[in-house]
Amino acid sequence: MDYSKKAISLHKKNKGKIEIKAKVSLNSMDDLSSVYTPGVGAVCSEIAKDKKKSYELTNRKNTIAIVCDGTAVLGLGNIGPEAGMPVMEGKSVIFKTFAGVDAIPLCIATQDTEEIIKFCKQIEPSFGGINLEDISAPRCFEILKVLEKELTIPVFHDDQDGTAIVVLAALINSCRVSLKNINKLKVVINGAGAAGIATARLLIAKGIKDIILLDSKGIINEKRKDLNEFKLDIAKKTNRERIEGGLEEAIIGADVFIGLSKPKLMNARMIKTMNKKPIVFAMANPVPEIMPDIAERAGAFIVGTGRSDFSNQINNALVFPGVFRGLIDSGKRVITEKLKLRVALALAYCLKKPTRKKILPKLTNRESVTEIAKAIK
Amino acid sequence: MDYSKKAISLHKKNKGKIEIKAKVSLNSMDDLSSVYTPGVGAVCSEIAKDKKKSYELTNRKNTIAIVCDGTAVLGLGNIGPEAGMPVMEGKSVIFKTFAGVDAIPLCIATQDTEEIIKFCKQIEPSFGGINLEDISAPRCFEILKVLEKELTIPVFHDDQDGTAIVVLAALINSCRVSLKNINKLKVVINGAGAAGIATARLLIAKGIKDIILLDSKGIINEKRKDLNEFKLDIAKKTNRERIEGGLEEAIIGADVFIGLSKPKLMNARMIKTMNKKPIVFAMANPVPEIMPDIAERAGAFIVGTGRSDFSNQINNALVFPGVFRGLIDSGKRVITEKLKLRVALALAYCLKKPTRKKILPKLTNRESVTEIAKAIK
Repeated sequence: MDYSKKAISLHKKNKGKIEIKAKVSLNSMDDLSSVYTPGVGAVCSEIAKDKKKSYELTNRKNTIAIVCDGTAVLGLGNIGPEAGMPVMEGKSVIFKTFAGVDAIPLCIATQDTEEIIKFCKQIEPSFGGINLEDISAPRCFEILKVLEKELTIPVFHDDQDGTAIVVLAALINSCRVSLKNINKLKVVINGAGAAGIATARLLIAKGIKDIILLDSKGIINEKRKDLNEFKLDIAKKTNRERIEGGLEEAIIGADVFIGLSKPKLMNARMIKTMNKKPIVFAMANPVPEIMPDIAERAGAFIVGTGRSDFSNQINNALVFPGVFRGLIDSGKRVITEKLKLRVALALAYCLKKPTRKKILPKLTNRESVTEIAKAIK
Repeated sequence: MDYSKKAISLHKKNKGKIEIKAKVSLNSMDDLSSVYTPGVGAVCSEIAKDKKKSYELTNRKNTIAIVCDGTAVLGLGNIGPEAGMPVMEGKSVIFKTFAGVDAIPLCIATQDTEEIIKFCKQIEPSFGGINLEDISAPRCFEILKVLEKELTIPVFHDDQDGTAIVVLAALINSCRVSLKNINKLKVVINGAGAAGIATARLLIAKGIKDIILLDSKGIINEKRKDLNEFKLDIAKKTNRERIEGGLEEAIIGADVFIGLSKPKLMNARMIKTMNKKPIVFAMANPVPEIMPDIAERAGAFIVGTGRSDFSNQINNALVFPGVFRGLIDSGKRVITEKLKLRVALALAYCLKKPTRKKILPKLTNRESVTEIAKAIK
């Protein structure tokens, strides 16, 4: 199926994918007097006396902003804010359809760390939460860190924690299917951007000790002089044998390949050098590191991608609707490491019996949203 | 009718007044593959190649931002961004219901001129237009001036031009009813904020020569040393007899009182000093400068307010939906003085036979939206 053509025609026909819907009607001057002036003045005054009332008297509680600077959109890179919008509208549709959350896409014309932080603080009074999206590393780490401290509303960087959580859930179920012990896995993560680093951090928190991370220059180890502070930090906690080289060297004997990088960086030959029952998550979007049929022919035991048109979709879209539903309903402000582990477990155990071809619930299965939200509460 | 109680209960029950609606459904993995990844990647790439495609492939063309800093909300003053939201949600409901425009309220936590300008530029890629709202004078003049020059999308400050247009339309029809010659009117405008100054400017453009403007310190004239540049500029073009004093002095012999100020600043005694067939627009919101029954008993020939629960509602809500419908559909970027005059005429002549109790179409009459949009095209 040519989804490119289909998607372009769907977007053209609908002129985008979201719109505003009024929750109240304006059939009479009487309606207008309550929805607008004079009645609305009293509503404003209530909030002026106590800001928290904005959570009761406006749609704020259920409204989040999806803030994107267009620097790391899917696997397409720095394509700019206008071009990021179709993804953000798509997320908004997913938020509303699966979790009832009203998400407003804001693709913005700045790529400056301080400006993005300031922007998020400026919009805070209008929103119940902020979903950072497709902001490239390493700026996204700093942005998230500052905002988690300084905002009064929850903030979540989907490409970091959303991805880390869904990968961990997929890994938990892959172990249930392959009967591998999760703490004894050798894991290779290709890609040390937002998703790669956050995934490594969460797998470490889970107790996995043998992890190798690669960026576009090769295996990350403490000896390299070209690492930013975030890569250096993760270098100290991974690659315990301090090996050097590229993916070919790293992948030998690995149980798991996690691709959070670019199209076509993995091949059949490398899969053949992996440990028994190789687990291959090729999550570059829209074109994965290796196509599933090729991976399977090369002996991969379990194969997942980020896409909706193959089995085993490992996509943070399984996570973010439930996470925000849970944050909104619980009033929690920060999603801790412990909470992330709990969410990953809840997502994994939505499936009573995972199989090689079904390691995660489908995106269209709303039970996972409920279970994730419950795990947060 | 106690609209305060009614409004608070309506807002509490509905938890605000707007929500997001998806224009596409997600019933299957096939749907997801077009709305989201992999298909959406091709849509992003189309826009990355040509930014203008964002007007075809996303909801951008039909989406505007309502940007408010909470400094001049209704007649309530500087009540902050959170407290401004009920008005902005109300505007969004009006935009959608009457003009089919998707308007996203963004109440922001800065009151700095440069920061607000920067904010509007940052959100530009996500929107087809910006409606500035309830930003206090004199900052709003500078903000509008800079944005009109530097944005590629239309920007409209409702409290300035929306109000000026609706007042002019009301005045045109009041003259049709009272048989006064519009160019020979003596007009007193109480309030020299965003609305007062913009209204004075538009009435001058219309050809009205005898205008007196007052701020909270009294009549504006060139001799005063405490005027900002915008008031000084308007001082040179009004008050041709250079009178001094307060509203009591200004109002003597006036044909028209236009209140764009604060509750209860006008009284029956002053109306009795006006010219024959006094025209009184008491537009402070939610509580007008004088209540209509008092004004009428004092001899006012025509009385209008900003409210929905009295006859003769003179509210910019009659203007902004049609203006943005017209701007969106025509692709026009700037609304010139000439265009404003044309819009005011179009709005006035929606009524074939205006009467003392009906000088403007009702807000719920959608014909005015169509006529205004036509006037812009």
